[in-house]
Amino acid sequence: MKSATHYLTMKVPERMGFVNITPDVVRVVRESGVQEGMCLVNAMHITASVFINDDEPGLHRDYRRWLEKLAPFDPSPTAYEHNRTGEDNGDAHHKRQIMGREVLVAVTRGELDFGPWEQVFYGEFDGRRPKRVLIKVIGE
Amino acid sequence: MKSATHYLTMKVPERMGFVNITPDVVRVVRESGVQEGMCLVNAMHITASVFINDDEPGLHRDYRRWLEKLAPFDPSPTAYEHNRTGEDNGDAHHKRQIMGREVLVAVTRGELDFGPWEQVFYGEFDGRRPKRVLIKVIGE
Amino acid sequence: MKSATHYLTMKVPERMGFVNITPDVVRVVRESGVQEGMCLVNAMHITASVFINDDEPGLHRDYRRWLEKLAPFDPSPTAYEHNRTGEDNGDAHHKRQIMGREVLVAVTRGELDFGPWEQVFYGEFDGRRPKRVLIKVIGE
Repeated sequence: MKSATHYLTMKVPERMGFVNITPDVVRVVRESGVQEGMCLVNAMHITASVFINDDEPGLHRDYRRWLEKLAPFDPSPTAYEHNRTGEDNGDAHHKRQIMGREVLVAVTRGELDFGPWEQVFYGEFDGRRPKRVLIKVIGE
Repeated sequence: MKSATHYLTMKVPERMGFVNITPDVVRVVRESGVQEGMCLVNAMHITASVFINDDEPGLHRDYRRWLEKLAPFDPSPTAYEHNRTGEDNGDAHHKRQIMGREVLVAVTRGELDFGPWEQVFYGEFDGRRPKRVLIKVIGE
Repeated sequence: MKSATHYLTMKVPERMGFVNITPDVVRVVRESGVQEGMCLVNAMHITASVFINDDEPGLHRDYRRWLEKLAPFDPSPTAYEHNRTGEDNGDAHHKRQIMGREVLVAVTRGELDFGPWEQVFYGEFDGRRPKRVLIKVIGE
């Protein structure tokens, strides 16, 4: 069995933002030499997501607005008890649950086995500081 | 390491619908010969989901109603900026995030290692055209 | 390829509750002897979740309140058609979709490859009876 492990450092200047990390995932898979296997990509922080969807800026603005409606930013400890800890990111822990922590992509004949529009995104919900993403490939 | 890769083509005649694909997943796992490993099942399209839940028609009607409330179908570009692209499926990209893209099921002694009620479903949110599902098994 | 399979039995005395199962996952990974691989942790029941987030009681109270808002408990068959089956847990099948069924964690140099705050939780949405969680490690 072969494996490869790679870490990305993400720096999103805004509180919320989406970054297409597909080229990084493609590169790690190719360098791994894995022909048949699986590739895990996950946020290593709990106020961030990795998800697969469309690389379309209008959709990303829609997501931002929708997530803000489902779990609005509000630094007060009455809105989120989590903010009693001195944090102001209670909302981000909720947004991340909607968008998910990780994706697992099949590797077939040495490439990510993607449908026509699948792209891997990092979703940041409490940005303005460096965070890490893990890419792990296993297979043969 | 053994691996097997299989693609299903789904044709849901309605905009939204759920299809039990467990028998296909069972078949691919058995044909793979894998005794201990993992089986990934994912939607290859970004307006569809693969998820595990109950094969109960009432629940599926509940899901439909609930998803419609969380992300209503609305073809207008004011409801979803994504619809400015000429698409009318902005809602479907949101519904898919709630229900998820993929499931990963353990394979133990040659079988899907399922709890008593676990069944794998394809969730369609922008149907009326063929779409693909990927089933990938790795293990030994 | 090495593999290890372990089952936990969860008994949450309330309808909804979160239990940190990270020590169990750590133990199964160490005992597996896998140095490089992946560890799947999933709820085997369809009214429960496994997810990764912060071990902070205030956040868990926030999650409880938020999930109750997104999918309120209501035993009536008008609130959830699923409850026509004689069940009263229609809400739990919805809450579980928000929080997810499973997590997949990279195993690197024999340990769970976690970010600084990642902890694995069992999320129960229809408790007061025993349910199972599956932990499966594959790798080398």
